[in-house]
Amino acid sequence: MFKAPYLLFLGDAPDRLAAKMAQGIYDWRPESAVGQFRMKDCNVDLGITDLSIQDAVAAGAKTLVIGIVNRGGVISESWKSVLIEALEAGMDIASGLHNLLRDEPDLVAAAEKAGQKLYDVRVPSIQYPIANGKKRSGKRCLAVGTDCSVGKMYTTLSMHREMKKCGMNATFRATGQTGILIEGDGVPLDAVIADFMAGSIEWLTPDNAEDHWDLIEGQGSLFHASYSGVTTALIHGGQPDALILCHEPTREHMRGLPEYQLPPLEALRDLSLRMATIVNPDCKVIGISINTQHMEEAEAMAYLNKVEKEMGLPTIDPFRQGPSRLIEALTCV
Amino acid sequence: MFKAPYLLFLGDAPDRLAAKMAQGIYDWRPESAVGQFRMKDCNVDLGITDLSIQDAVAAGAKTLVIGIVNRGGVISESWKSVLIEALEAGMDIASGLHNLLRDEPDLVAAAEKAGQKLYDVRVPSIQYPIANGKKRSGKRCLAVGTDCSVGKMYTTLSMHREMKKCGMNATFRATGQTGILIEGDGVPLDAVIADFMAGSIEWLTPDNAEDHWDLIEGQGSLFHASYSGVTTALIHGGQPDALILCHEPTREHMRGLPEYQLPPLEALRDLSLRMATIVNPDCKVIGISINTQHMEEAEAMAYLNKVEKEMGLPTIDPFRQGPSRLIEALTCV
Repeated sequence: MFKAPYLLFLGDAPDRLAAKMAQGIYDWRPESAVGQFRMKDCNVDLGITDLSIQDAVAAGAKTLVIGIVNRGGVISESWKSVLIEALEAGMDIASGLHNLLRDEPDLVAAAEKAGQKLYDVRVPSIQYPIANGKKRSGKRCLAVGTDCSVGKMYTTLSMHREMKKCGMNATFRATGQTGILIEGDGVPLDAVIADFMAGSIEWLTPDNAEDHWDLIEGQGSLFHASYSGVTTALIHGGQPDALILCHEPTREHMRGLPEYQLPPLEALRDLSLRMATIVNPDCKVIGISINTQHMEEAEAMAYLNKVEKEMGLPTIDPFRQGPSRLIEALTCV
Repeated sequence: MFKAPYLLFLGDAPDRLAAKMAQGIYDWRPESAVGQFRMKDCNVDLGITDLSIQDAVAAGAKTLVIGIVNRGGVISESWKSVLIEALEAGMDIASGLHNLLRDEPDLVAAAEKAGQKLYDVRVPSIQYPIANGKKRSGKRCLAVGTDCSVGKMYTTLSMHREMKKCGMNATFRATGQTGILIEGDGVPLDAVIADFMAGSIEWLTPDNAEDHWDLIEGQGSLFHASYSGVTTALIHGGQPDALILCHEPTREHMRGLPEYQLPPLEALRDLSLRMATIVNPDCKVIGISINTQHMEEAEAMAYLNKVEKEMGLPTIDPFRQGPSRLIEALTCV
């Protein structure tokens, strides 16, 4: 979609949380970031070179990526002069903010004049097809969760990185705005029109080499009343050969739904597999990824061991331990 | 949404199939149709009064409903003078065509000048909320199918009509364009943005009297790779207390998916109930509606008896037999 390498724009980010988009890109694609641009009241430092717009272009930057999320997701007026300078200097701009670049007339005019592009990754840029359900070549792995935001993206990104390191043939397939900003491409599934959801995922994960794996970023949860339709479309459009179950064990209720408890991993396994086998009878659940960030090391290890014994599947925290055991399991599919 | 009663516009419909929207409205809401408007080359007659635009207005018509679907779903230039006359005479216009009324500058101008409204029922007219999953008062019944177009809308419409006849408290909740044209209101679910699908159905089926039933029109199928996400959102947004299984026994493969067989009714029962109990643990499958239009009477009756015995649930064809046994089953929920 948009071109690497990037200049990561941190603007006037007050803290690390506000700069989490930039941090995500730098964590997962350090080779794509030529440097950072910080305005004078920025309180965050990613630890890479500070570059002016002109220096960034000289260093080869093709796209300025807005790596800051402020309250309300708006494009601050104070950023405008920098953004316009970047367009004039020959960079495109990419953003995942609610406030779309295309809705800012001054940016649209500057981009047009400079012959540069504005990429709003939060909204679909193409008309996706309706899914046809046909079997595609190559292999696909999808992360599914007991809830939203339990580590599905982290799991697939870490698997992808490790697979590339081992020389395996794999692609990370982003389905949400952070993932798209990291990968530079993908489908903003939550913004796709209902009829085209599964088709957009078929489009995202086309025929491929027999040894190729798509690592598909999960969204929502089959058990989450607000977003389960999105998850279903992801399973049926993605036609996974392998499923990874993702879970965050300290959460007290489903995200945003105080009346709902998280389902047990057994329930996630059974329902996800039931849905997946409708489109791929050979699909298997191959492992479990647990987000233990709110547990002490000893507690986390004990929990991982307990789940592994109960479920009979490789169970790891990819942040603590790396994803190697999931990849081993994948190679047996 | 749009106001009854209607003048049913048949335009230059070459045959009954082209006029099926008008036919649907007249079949299910005869009291809403003051008459039909046929252009001189129209080959269809619904059997109601032919009215001029002026006579229709005099008879109280508030909305001209485009009841014809031509090839490509376009608004024919030859209709324009009639449509503009209707606007000038004080009627609104409602349409379910792909070609939106709002995309025709001459209609937009005429509507504005006359102070009348254009209703494109194929696209959402409001910003739906994100679903919150909260329990609502009143009861809800949803039709789910082994495939698309197996009679889900017919089933809920016929149940609704029968319930009203018996003095029961019930509302038909349309989720597709034909249903919306019939009811005059509803959610065009296949055109809703992914994140808001379940929320749109919560909005459509709000808190209600304890004895009130929403009869929710089904869409797609959990087993249909293209549309299963829409069906999931409908189940989780609708929070049904009762499910009706719908099936068409002569179909050779899933609609539009030649590689896929229809699932057995047992599979539909189990998966639909599993999904529904996530949001309503008390949900029950209460009956089965079979579309036997492609079977002879004796064959149909034998099939219905066989399914009833195998599944242990009231099994009927609402077209042949009426829906009374489904409504009896509903009153036990």
